[in-house]
Formats: sequence, structure tokens, C-alpha cells
Amino acid sequence: MVNKRYDIAIVGSGPAGLSAALNAKIRKKDFIIFGNKDLSSKVVKAPKVNNYLGLYNIDGLGLKESFQNHIDSMGIEITHERINSIYAMGDYYVLMVNEKMYEAKSIILATGIEYTKPIKGEEEFLGRGVGYCATCDAPLYHDKIVTVIGYNKESEEETNFLSEVASKIYYVPMYNGEYELNENIEIIKGKPVEIVGDELVTKLILTTKEITTDGVFVLKDSISPAQLVPGLQIEDDHIKVDRLMKTNLPGCFAAGDCIGKPYQYIKAAGEGNIASLSCASYLDSIKK
Amino acid sequence: MVNKRYDIAIVGSGPAGLSAALNAKIRKKDFIIFGNKDLSSKVVKAPKVNNYLGLYNIDGLGLKESFQNHIDSMGIEITHERINSIYAMGDYYVLMVNEKMYEAKSIILATGIEYTKPIKGEEEFLGRGVGYCATCDAPLYHDKIVTVIGYNKESEEETNFLSEVASKIYYVPMYNGEYELNENIEIIKGKPVEIVGDELVTKLILTTKEITTDGVFVLKDSISPAQLVPGLQIEDDHIKVDRLMKTNLPGCFAAGDCIGKPYQYIKAAGEGNIASLSCASYLDSIKK
Repeated sequence: MVNKRYDIAIVGSGPAGLSAALNAKIRKKDFIIFGNKDLSSKVVKAPKVNNYLGLYNIDGLGLKESFQNHIDSMGIEITHERINSIYAMGDYYVLMVNEKMYEAKSIILATGIEYTKPIKGEEEFLGRGVGYCATCDAPLYHDKIVTVIGYNKESEEETNFLSEVASKIYYVPMYNGEYELNENIEIIKGKPVEIVGDELVTKLILTTKEITTDGVFVLKDSISPAQLVPGLQIEDDHIKVDRLMKTNLPGCFAAGDCIGKPYQYIKAAGEGNIASLSCASYLDSIKK
Repeated sequence: MVNKRYDIAIVGSGPAGLSAALNAKIRKKDFIIFGNKDLSSKVVKAPKVNNYLGLYNIDGLGLKESFQNHIDSMGIEITHERINSIYAMGDYYVLMVNEKMYEAKSIILATGIEYTKPIKGEEEFLGRGVGYCATCDAPLYHDKIVTVIGYNKESEEETNFLSEVASKIYYVPMYNGEYELNENIEIIKGKPVEIVGDELVTKLILTTKEITTDGVFVLKDSISPAQLVPGLQIEDDHIKVDRLMKTNLPGCFAAGDCIGKPYQYIKAAGEGNIASLSCASYLDSIKK
């Protein structure tokens, strides 16, 4: 099966991603935008915003509504999927979403800044027992012991799926609430400290205890840009871009909180605009 | 008389200047913003804007109205004066408006890009027969021959004032319309080509004729940043700034079209936001 190849894939549906989408639409590019129903969890939580020029005395929900109306009116639909990883393939990019794969000639990263710090050992053992997508990697853990570190409610579903394959499942919830988990899943309280192993993962050390495990899934809301896109240049914890929002990877642009402070909505929207226009120029240049 | 010294002077009332003003207000800075009644002559002329996130299918006048409502609601008033020149005085700036003078600890330049190209010789003879403010320099031309190159209707008033002082006035209108000029003012048709002289200005060469003159006033809508702020670093015809909108002069920030492409409203507003927050940090740092 040959995948459809989009002109642009936009990752993130906060102000930067949405602003990029508006311009991609106006420039008649064939694009896909990945995000969530709330558009931005940060925006909807904002109590009051007074410095988004043109929209006075608005709260986060009002702002979200204005954004939603705008994209709806322009026929822009958000694909509600969480990208696990992105690979530069030379003249295009592959975006992995659990078992699915998307392709795009160029990408705009607008992933925000609210990502979780990696656990010690997480990056080191990525692909060697550490994974971000339980659904995709489940077959590797047939009859094995697996630990899931879940940062949100949605992690539970993936863990339940895993429990049908693995012999033993530990679930480490990083949030409070009622857990809807299959009976054979053991809930572990405590904060993960380090993932250890040799060639492959062997153990997870928590503040409360140590668990012997063959695999650790870290299911977070978002992954840091460096983990998301191998090879992407980072400077001072943010994606490094130039004034035209170009990263070090050809065809890869970035905008919003993920490229640096100040973390402000209209700054992010402005950068999304620039990134999208730069991306359109890039697409024109590779057509020749 | 000692001048009041503002924390911030914002030059320009387009999206960048207004966005800077919102943040200066929120940060409780004592600021002044210079601009005009239309806010931005570029914005009001825009036929349709679809990429200002949050405001769908709006025209330039609608956008202007949203901006005006926003600043009105926050009690921000625009000072309708045109800055002729700005001088860095070490730890503050002096802004000249005809015969008036304003002082500010820091400045944010949001002057846009629609300025007129200088005439050959204009920059060379600035202060040696060439001036931008007829009202301020009039006393120098008592009983002399003066030529005014007027780019707008308002230039006529300044020229009429000059005609009460100078012995002879030529008026070169760069626009069409009815001219309301005192009787002793001679209207010259033609496009200025070069201002020539030795130590001081002696002559203006036009496409149609040459005029012997002691002084030339060039009265334009806006002055290029390099002419406006001596010492300001320019790169590729735009004010050079870093990612935090800092120019090469301490306490001088810039945002919007004047710092570079793409010329987009929300990009300008985003940069105004950054410039204002950087400016607030600068003010905090000099207080210590």
C-alpha cells in the first residue's frame, strides 16, 4: 500500500499550528493538521487574556471558540491523533501514529512546551525496551512483563489492550483519579526514578520500590521535540529556528512555544504564519 | 523646563505598535504611543483578511475597528504626532516632533515599511540645508529661498507657515489634488531628482527644471528607520533585531514590517508582544 503524501503535516493545534493551517489553506496546499479536540490544553485553561490584539477581555474558552469558528469557517479539520515519532527520509517525512503512518513533503512543528521531562534512562533505552506506543509495540511483549507509566486517562485503554498480550502488567499512574483497568493489571504507586538495563531494559526503579520488567511504555501527552524528531537541533531546551522559522532539517519548520519564550498566544500565531509561508516557499522550491 | 520621561515610547500604531501597547499597559509601564487616527494606513486599505487567527473573514476596516475597540477598552490613547527624529542619549531617548520634544527610557519602533525612498543627496545634506520639519527649522530660513517637497496634504500647512518667514517658497507636490497654499508660494511640477550643494544646499534638480534654493524640506508620511534613529543597525533594508526584538541600541526594540518579511498583521502583532515584554525586562534591569 502506498501512502498518500501530503504537502505539509502540521503537528499541534494551538495558536501556532492553527495559524499555520490558515495560511496553508489560503496557499492551497494539501495539508493535514494533528491535534486534539480542545485545540490547546493550555489555551482552554487560561483564565483571562487581554493581550491578543483584536479580542479584548476574552477567557481561554472564548479564545478557543474564536479559533474553532475560524478554522471551521475555512473548512479546516483537525486529525485527532498523537504523533509518536517523525523521521526525515530525505525528501519527505514519515509521521508515526501508533500503528499508522503518514507521509508529508514538509512539516511544521507546533508542539508547545508542556511536555514531560524524560525519566533517567528513558532516552538511552528508547527502542531497546522503552516505547511510546503500546498499541504498536504490543506484539514484542507476548508473554513478557511490561510496565506502563501513564500520564493520562487515555493510557488506560492502551494498557488494557497490552494486558491481552503480555503475561504481567504493572501500571504506574502519574495522575489521580479512578483507574478503569483490567483485573490482571497491577497498579504501582510511586514516582519513576530510573529505567535500567544492559542491552535491553531489565528494571524500573521507583521512589517506592523496584520492578523487574522487560519493557517500559511511557505514555505522555506530548514528547519533547528532540525525541519526536531525531536529528532536530535544540538550543536552550527549544527547537532552534532562524527568523523564517526554519529548523536545521530541510523542509522542517517550527513555531510557537516550542521554539522559545515568551510563551504568548499571539506570538505563537504570528510565528505559525511565518512558518507556513516559509514552508510554502520551500514546497515551491523543491517543485522546480 | 524639565520634560517628563516615559518608561517607553512606542512609535507606530499598526498591529505591532498596538500589541506592544497592550503589553506595556498590562505590565503597568508609563508609556506613550505615537500614531495616527487610522491606526495603520495599510490595515484600513486591506480588502479582506483571512489569516488573522480568531477573526475570520474580516476586512481592513473591521480589523481596524477590532483593534480600536481593544485599545479603547484598555484606556490606551494614541498621540497623533509624527516623530521626526530620535536620538540615543545614553540612558534615555529623545524623540523630536516638530518643535516638541519627548523623552523615554526605552523605545519600541513599529514604523512599518511604507516609507519613501530618499532623494539623491537627501541623506548627505541632512542638517546642512535638508530638513524634515519645516516648523522647527523655519527660523534658519529668514529671508531665504526654501523649497518644500510635500508628500501629503498636511505639508501645505507647514509650507504656509514657512512662507511667513522665508523670502521665497517653492512647493513641489508629490500627490494630486487641490493645493491650499498662500499666494506667495510657487507650485513646481516635476519629480525631484537630486539635491546638490557644496557645504550647504544650493540647488534642487527636478525632472522638469532646476531651482536655486537655500533649503529643502522633505515632508513625508514616514522616514526610514536609519534616518529616524541615527546609529541604528540596518540589514537588508530592515532594522536588525534578535529573536527578542532587540536592536543594536540598548533600550531600543523593534517589531513588525520594519524588521522584515513576511509583512503580515499577526506576525507584526506577535512581534509587538515580544518587543514589549523584552522592553519591560530591560526597564527592570536598569532599575537595579
